[in-house]
Amino acid sequence: MSLLLGFREYRSQSIALAEAAGLDYAEVDVHRFPDGESRIRLPADLPDGVVLCRSLDHPNDKLVELILAAGEARALGVQSLTLVAPYLCYMRQDRSFQPGEAVSQRIVGALLARYFDGLVTVDPHLHRVRDIEQAVPTGRSVSLLATTSVADFLARRLPDALLVGPDAESAQWVAAAASRAGLDFVIGNKVRHGDREVEIRLEGDFAGRDVVLVDDVASTGHTLEVAGGIIARAGPASISVVVTHALFADDAYERLERAGFEHIWSTDSIPHASNAISLAPLLAAQLRTSL
Amino acid sequence: MSLLLGFREYRSQSIALAEAAGLDYAEVDVHRFPDGESRIRLPADLPDGVVLCRSLDHPNDKLVELILAAGEARALGVQSLTLVAPYLCYMRQDRSFQPGEAVSQRIVGALLARYFDGLVTVDPHLHRVRDIEQAVPTGRSVSLLATTSVADFLARRLPDALLVGPDAESAQWVAAAASRAGLDFVIGNKVRHGDREVEIRLEGDFAGRDVVLVDDVASTGHTLEVAGGIIARAGPASISVVVTHALFADDAYERLERAGFEHIWSTDSIPHASNAISLAPLLAAQLRTSL
Repeated sequence: MSLLLGFREYRSQSIALAEAAGLDYAEVDVHRFPDGESRIRLPADLPDGVVLCRSLDHPNDKLVELILAAGEARALGVQSLTLVAPYLCYMRQDRSFQPGEAVSQRIVGALLARYFDGLVTVDPHLHRVRDIEQAVPTGRSVSLLATTSVADFLARRLPDALLVGPDAESAQWVAAAASRAGLDFVIGNKVRHGDREVEIRLEGDFAGRDVVLVDDVASTGHTLEVAGGIIARAGPASISVVVTHALFADDAYERLERAGFEHIWSTDSIPHASNAISLAPLLAAQLRTSL
Repeated sequence: MSLLLGFREYRSQSIALAEAAGLDYAEVDVHRFPDGESRIRLPADLPDGVVLCRSLDHPNDKLVELILAAGEARALGVQSLTLVAPYLCYMRQDRSFQPGEAVSQRIVGALLARYFDGLVTVDPHLHRVRDIEQAVPTGRSVSLLATTSVADFLARRLPDALLVGPDAESAQWVAAAASRAGLDFVIGNKVRHGDREVEIRLEGDFAGRDVVLVDDVASTGHTLEVAGGIIARAGPASISVVVTHALFADDAYERLERAGFEHIWSTDSIPHASNAISLAPLLAAQLRTSL
């Protein structure tokens, strides 16, 4: 019998996952001292197999605490330690864009692989690396697609929607969601100029349609804003947004709300006001087959 | 020839150390993305031997960035990587005070030892572990005493001072400083009740003397405040404080200032307004013998 250990900031999602997967739930006690150090306490009596569930947005504190928790779990005799990180950090820097830049995907991947025997994550932002096992070589690393969760949600909420993927990277993913939900879809073409500037080319028959922009992550929100602007000029019935990871930097969410999107939906990989789609069934199905 | 790589928040101290040790200096470029991830860039052309200098107060971000920097240094072919951390983090939790508590000293020590071939630190707060090599097993871990730096400073500034160590832990250290500076000293007895409450027993002939409280770290400042209160009732000429590590949580420094201490001095292990004693000569002497 396995135990799922959660963290306070992701409690309700972790409890939902434990219930769906038929696992007991307990919480890691985290105390931050005034000097910025963290004290971690686990239940002292742990089974051989433990799942640690923590989503790794704003990751640095969480990573250090995760290493402390994993180290203590080993000290308490845990044999098999699986990390469920619905949002996985440091996956975007997969090469040195400038000489001397740390390839954080490889370094953090190797670090996690030292502490965990398995990893389950959702829609990691992998570009040049196709396989999550290559990025985080635990031997049992699994990357799930939120496609089915998103498609089933959209089929219920907007059964005639036209899905739009803003760039070629999203093509395969949007196509799969559209296929499962029986919806039309369009793929745009994105050119990025620097950190915050994007140019998007997007053609489609948007007039009178309920258009839904679909992406894996909303960070600055610029891609979605630019794409939304192009679609708006074509006279759609409504424009909504659905993303897997509600990362939303700074005031990105408020800007998107003001930009006139009908709905802004996300999965609960990162706790946020836009969360509308639970990943618990998807993650639980994986845990039931792999534990 | 070795290179010392510093970080922005500890720049002037790192440059002083590089100069004193006869090393070239370059800086690690750290960029924090809006999503809380860090991008690290090193000079692309590194020698075989590199010293990374970063003091690890408020450590979690710094630790993750240090791992990224170390990982990239290895990728760039560095053979020998030494960490100079004048303030070393997570040394106080050296056992499970409650069942299930992560022994962060051991876990963080093992983590650092995976990335570095050597460590130099100053006055780490070790209790039950006597040897820094036991806590951070790099094979070349060295813990320096700030005693000589502090003693030489006090001998110049208050040549007739009476040194006071607030508890038995500080005895050996205060005795060494007093001996080197040719000063008298007194050791108190501290009993800690919980996180913020301390009781101190302290006897000495303080009347008319320039008393200097000496400790390794000022965190909440409660120990110093309580000891200062006891001494004040004995009618000293002045009461000052000198600590190695100016950790000062929350408003601790402001409280000490208001408590009427004549001087509050610290080494520059943690950048702070109270810094008065440079550790560069001490650290440089060690680097010159060990590199």
